[in-house]
Amino acid sequence: WKAKTGSEALQFLISKWTMACLVGILLGFVAFMVNACVENISGVKLLSTLNFLEQDRYVVAALVLGGGNILLVLLSVCLCACLAPEASGSGIPEVKAYLNGTNAPNILSMKTLIVKVLGSIAAVSGGLYLGKEAPFVHSGACIASLLCQGGSERFNLTWKWQRVLSHDRLRRDLVTCGAAAGIAVAFRAPLGGVIFALEELASWWRSELLWLVLFTTACITVVRQVINNLCEGGKCGIFGNGGLIVFDMSEVSTNMRLMALIPALLLGIVGGILGSLFTYLSGKIMKFYSNWHRKNECVGKVLQALLVSAITSFCAFGLPWLASCKPCPSGAECPSSLPTGIYKRFTCSSGYYNDLAGLMFSTNDDVIRSLLNNNTNNEFQYSSLLIFLVSTFILTLITYGLAVPSGLFLPVIIIGATYGRLTGKFMKSYIGFDNIDEGLFAYMGAASFLGGSMRIAVSICVILLELTNNLLMLPWTMLVLLISKTVGDLFNVGVYDQIVIMKELPFLEEKPEPYMKHLTTEDVCSCPVVSLSAIERVSAIVEVLAKTNHNGFPVLETTPASPYPTLNGLILRSHLLILLREKELFFQDACDPVCYDTKSGKIDITKLMSGKGPTMSDIRLTAEEEGMFIDLRPFTNTSPYTVKEDMSLAKAFSLFRQLGLRHLCVIPRKGGPCPVVGILTRHDFMPEYILGLYPDLKISKWRRI
Amino acid sequence: WKAKTGSEALQFLISKWTMACLVGILLGFVAFMVNACVENISGVKLLSTLNFLEQDRYVVAALVLGGGNILLVLLSVCLCACLAPEASGSGIPEVKAYLNGTNAPNILSMKTLIVKVLGSIAAVSGGLYLGKEAPFVHSGACIASLLCQGGSERFNLTWKWQRVLSHDRLRRDLVTCGAAAGIAVAFRAPLGGVIFALEELASWWRSELLWLVLFTTACITVVRQVINNLCEGGKCGIFGNGGLIVFDMSEVSTNMRLMALIPALLLGIVGGILGSLFTYLSGKIMKFYSNWHRKNECVGKVLQALLVSAITSFCAFGLPWLASCKPCPSGAECPSSLPTGIYKRFTCSSGYYNDLAGLMFSTNDDVIRSLLNNNTNNEFQYSSLLIFLVSTFILTLITYGLAVPSGLFLPVIIIGATYGRLTGKFMKSYIGFDNIDEGLFAYMGAASFLGGSMRIAVSICVILLELTNNLLMLPWTMLVLLISKTVGDLFNVGVYDQIVIMKELPFLEEKPEPYMKHLTTEDVCSCPVVSLSAIERVSAIVEVLAKTNHNGFPVLETTPASPYPTLNGLILRSHLLILLREKELFFQDACDPVCYDTKSGKIDITKLMSGKGPTMSDIRLTAEEEGMFIDLRPFTNTSPYTVKEDMSLAKAFSLFRQLGLRHLCVIPRKGGPCPVVGILTRHDFMPEYILGLYPDLKISKWRRI
Repeated sequence: WKAKTGSEALQFLISKWTMACLVGILLGFVAFMVNACVENISGVKLLSTLNFLEQDRYVVAALVLGGGNILLVLLSVCLCACLAPEASGSGIPEVKAYLNGTNAPNILSMKTLIVKVLGSIAAVSGGLYLGKEAPFVHSGACIASLLCQGGSERFNLTWKWQRVLSHDRLRRDLVTCGAAAGIAVAFRAPLGGVIFALEELASWWRSELLWLVLFTTACITVVRQVINNLCEGGKCGIFGNGGLIVFDMSEVSTNMRLMALIPALLLGIVGGILGSLFTYLSGKIMKFYSNWHRKNECVGKVLQALLVSAITSFCAFGLPWLASCKPCPSGAECPSSLPTGIYKRFTCSSGYYNDLAGLMFSTNDDVIRSLLNNNTNNEFQYSSLLIFLVSTFILTLITYGLAVPSGLFLPVIIIGATYGRLTGKFMKSYIGFDNIDEGLFAYMGAASFLGGSMRIAVSICVILLELTNNLLMLPWTMLVLLISKTVGDLFNVGVYDQIVIMKELPFLEEKPEPYMKHLTTEDVCSCPVVSLSAIERVSAIVEVLAKTNHNGFPVLETTPASPYPTLNGLILRSHLLILLREKELFFQDACDPVCYDTKSGKIDITKLMSGKGPTMSDIRLTAEEEGMFIDLRPFTNTSPYTVKEDMSLAKAFSLFRQLGLRHLCVIPRKGGPCPVVGILTRHDFMPEYILGLYPDLKISKWRRI
Repeated sequence: WKAKTGSEALQFLISKWTMACLVGILLGFVAFMVNACVENISGVKLLSTLNFLEQDRYVVAALVLGGGNILLVLLSVCLCACLAPEASGSGIPEVKAYLNGTNAPNILSMKTLIVKVLGSIAAVSGGLYLGKEAPFVHSGACIASLLCQGGSERFNLTWKWQRVLSHDRLRRDLVTCGAAAGIAVAFRAPLGGVIFALEELASWWRSELLWLVLFTTACITVVRQVINNLCEGGKCGIFGNGGLIVFDMSEVSTNMRLMALIPALLLGIVGGILGSLFTYLSGKIMKFYSNWHRKNECVGKVLQALLVSAITSFCAFGLPWLASCKPCPSGAECPSSLPTGIYKRFTCSSGYYNDLAGLMFSTNDDVIRSLLNNNTNNEFQYSSLLIFLVSTFILTLITYGLAVPSGLFLPVIIIGATYGRLTGKFMKSYIGFDNIDEGLFAYMGAASFLGGSMRIAVSICVILLELTNNLLMLPWTMLVLLISKTVGDLFNVGVYDQIVIMKELPFLEEKPEPYMKHLTTEDVCSCPVVSLSAIERVSAIVEVLAKTNHNGFPVLETTPASPYPTLNGLILRSHLLILLREKELFFQDACDPVCYDTKSGKIDITKLMSGKGPTMSDIRLTAEEEGMFIDLRPFTNTSPYTVKEDMSLAKAFSLFRQLGLRHLCVIPRKGGPCPVVGILTRHDFMPEYILGLYPDLKISKWRRI
């Protein structure tokens, strides 16, 4: 809580905005690399498979597809399972938890970043049913965090402005920017990124942050534009076609009126039910996987991934045989020669195409594009869509828990669009919704499944708007999302929250649980508290640090005026360790205040705090030194936030959560021998802990809605 | 902090969502009424003026225009000045202050709502340069607040579910919904409304609220759609044409590439400078007006408004004479017969049109539409645009402080679009930006002036996107807004914040001021504090209530254990008044605890709190009653948030602001004769108050950016 001088404030301001811009630029290049690699690798793979198929060399085609997929997935899973396990999964729950104040080890390190990027390229081009969107969010967060600490922890660069920036809150802000930029670049949705960060990721939001995030996403959009201009005309291989809008639906007619409320309602309910079913099943599967992982660490993960990859390749190659060939529509290029076309000949004779192969042998983006397309009203058969729906649902479920970097957005959109299109086809044929496009049904289906599984509203609206560029669908999107979210919430929590719970990340919710109103702070706080005296013997400090793993200790002071000690403040473990390492403030006699006065100016704890702090193993003390004393008072936080022991836990929770505290001192209601009853930490507010102490308390059913 | 039972929670849930829906529906009808009235009244007025002009009956035309305007403005200003002064102005700053915790009297009453709606209709159709958008926001907030309290305060309906809803936080949430719905219906921008509420209005945001607000804006969009369908084909007069998108620019080519950074930068800087100039000047003018108002209350306001109306009519009628006639373009209907056309003949001969008259004799919407239009590249002359720019700028300035309901959005967009178009014309002719459309320049100009004067970012992006339906302009919009906001912030605060400051509304900013880090809580708190004893004589309570206007009093308790009293808790003025009115808990002997025990169950303070609480004048006590005692302990909040006297004021501010407190007890560092040093209220955190106490402190220059 030190005030900055004018020039410091200006320096801080400039470095902050430069950093935000840098985050955007760096992530822009990373995203370009990932996209270009994925599109080229999977493009080549799919094209050669299709070529062999056209030459009726089925076995070779199967081997090329399956072998390529297995090799790529092997690369991805080896990197993730053995090098950086933190890089597996989507990363969004971890970033969310980080922004909530929980720093899982290594989650934002250089190694994680590299593995995430390479692993994501390999996994996505390896044909697994996962997206590269969530990994962008995680990569953006990593880049921001690394920039803020001046590079990797091991090769710490000491930039001139690094000290200005080594500030917990700024780092958190920049990580928010990075994550928002990830969404912005993944969906080419600068506004969507800002609002996603605001709605889903950030736990503490300030309007100041809004501008910084907006600036980052604007930077990344400009970078994207520049790269796209450079890549035009095939200079970056297959990559490079497509502007700001990924799935253009602006031509879709939205002459829907109020009648469209019926499909919106229907798809919303279906989306909510399917979404919560998906969440439930994926939870079960991830639990099953993690049991397996525990037994055979690295090998188990690799085998699992290879198995899933083999199943995926088998489905992709085997299922299209079930679909019948359809005659080519007139006018279109059929069968298409480009990998992006939906008319895949597969095993059909000339002039015919296999619609299921078109869905199976395309990249995720192309599948979505053809499902949402309004010019493909009769291209897909019921049976093909149904087979595709079921297989995608199952494949996505078994893929999501694997030890590879995986995003959920694209698979979820695919599943939603498929059942939306099925519903649309059915309603058009049998119920008479003639004037509603099948592509529009697919779109609403996608929205409903996104809402039902992720339980995010406004940002999904904006992202879908920016993806499809059709503003007129916005009211219906909002309704579908509201309904599917509410229906989903009746059954369980969203898919990201479930991962937070499963990984046991100590995430602090926004609001206190209702049962907290029945408890007082005293009921849950860690007590008896381990405290230190204002002038404490070094050996006592060493003992306390070695015996406990607390991060903060109350410092008590005895004054002649009062019979009992009073609370001087709170001292942090990290500060104690520095004091022990520096040794300068040790003195012989516990009753010599002069000694402290002359020494106090010598040590500036904030200066010493920059860089990696010492750990217990760095402390080497002689027996003589252990007998000496330290005056802790200049280093305590003399005005920690306190609550009384009889305050309702819900009130204490609000204080703790809103101010983002790490320690909250519980003081007795009335003076007594001990001025601190206990200390509340994040751990003490966790529902599992509280419900463990008081199993009779119940979680309200209606809370989630 | 009482927990709800399951059924109560469900009842609360259902009533909350029903209320949110009702707010949307009611505001939808109000908005329809306003729009239909404005479009019909001003359409008839403009059409008849133009008809007289075509018949060369200039004096009659001038009389119709000027007379009509003056009558309408007279109606509006009479309503506002004499009936409900709270309804004048935009209302957004007041709603913002309400959501921050400051309830200006009557700001959300039924009278204000009615005057706001009628006054807005009259003022807008009276041709003043103001918008009807901000009044929608205020009306929405009024509707929500009235619904929540069960109708107007005087005719309080006691609905069955009213008690469930008479909850401060819920009311604030619904007011947020209403305000968001106002933006949603004004700009037909459901998402823009949500994000405006989030970014600009709400001081405390919870993700739960996001869903409620989204639901309200979805409801209002559906209502709007239904009304529009009913009105199709001229059934509501001139009103009813136009769908969800107000200013369709989807046809504008955005083939801009990176070169477009130059105009974006330029317009951003211009917008920032002009925006802060506008804010500065409008502040001066409002101060001048309010001095005038103070001298001659009602009459002054009316005369002022009539004067401005006369000037506006004079400009509208007089200025087009300065413009030369231009030949009609081939193909277009020229001169146009509809009021919405831009080719107004005015005094020109047949086959010619007056471009300035096209701008002057149209409603705000039509002016913006023709300025943003991409098919009107050569329709406007430099001189006409310049005259229009200067006159609009001045007229908007002198109009904004009048005692009529006035919004700033539309005038600001008009000014911005005009200088944008001027810049575009100039750059196309002389610098060679041939491939950028003039409409696009106008659009960027509008964005820059919005950013420069209002300093809002994301919501303006979304609103502009929803207004124009051209996603490809989004990256440039973001850049322009960022630049103009930053440039504007170098000079002064935004136009809404300025009104909050001028009206001396005690608005708590999000972050503590830097100088607060140099002060402690003791330095500013109101002391000595007026406290009560746990068992207090009635006459003492009456005296304290009569002498002070504090809203909370600490209750002290003496126990045999300690020589000094301890802090039992905090009791609210409203609760004390109820205790005095009810009299049931009075008892004779101060030392009779049994007496309290038997009586305590009889009174449920939350039940008595619903409805209007008593005031001092409602209390009638006999001399005997005044000699009796009350035990205050069951009614005190026994665990108020407390801070120590040596805590940094910035830390105390964070606690106060983040938790939305009204009282914060300052306790002494070490025990002493008095357990409470003072109480911090909102007033003690106001910069004016603190800087009054410590004039040496300075406000940092860089804080705003």
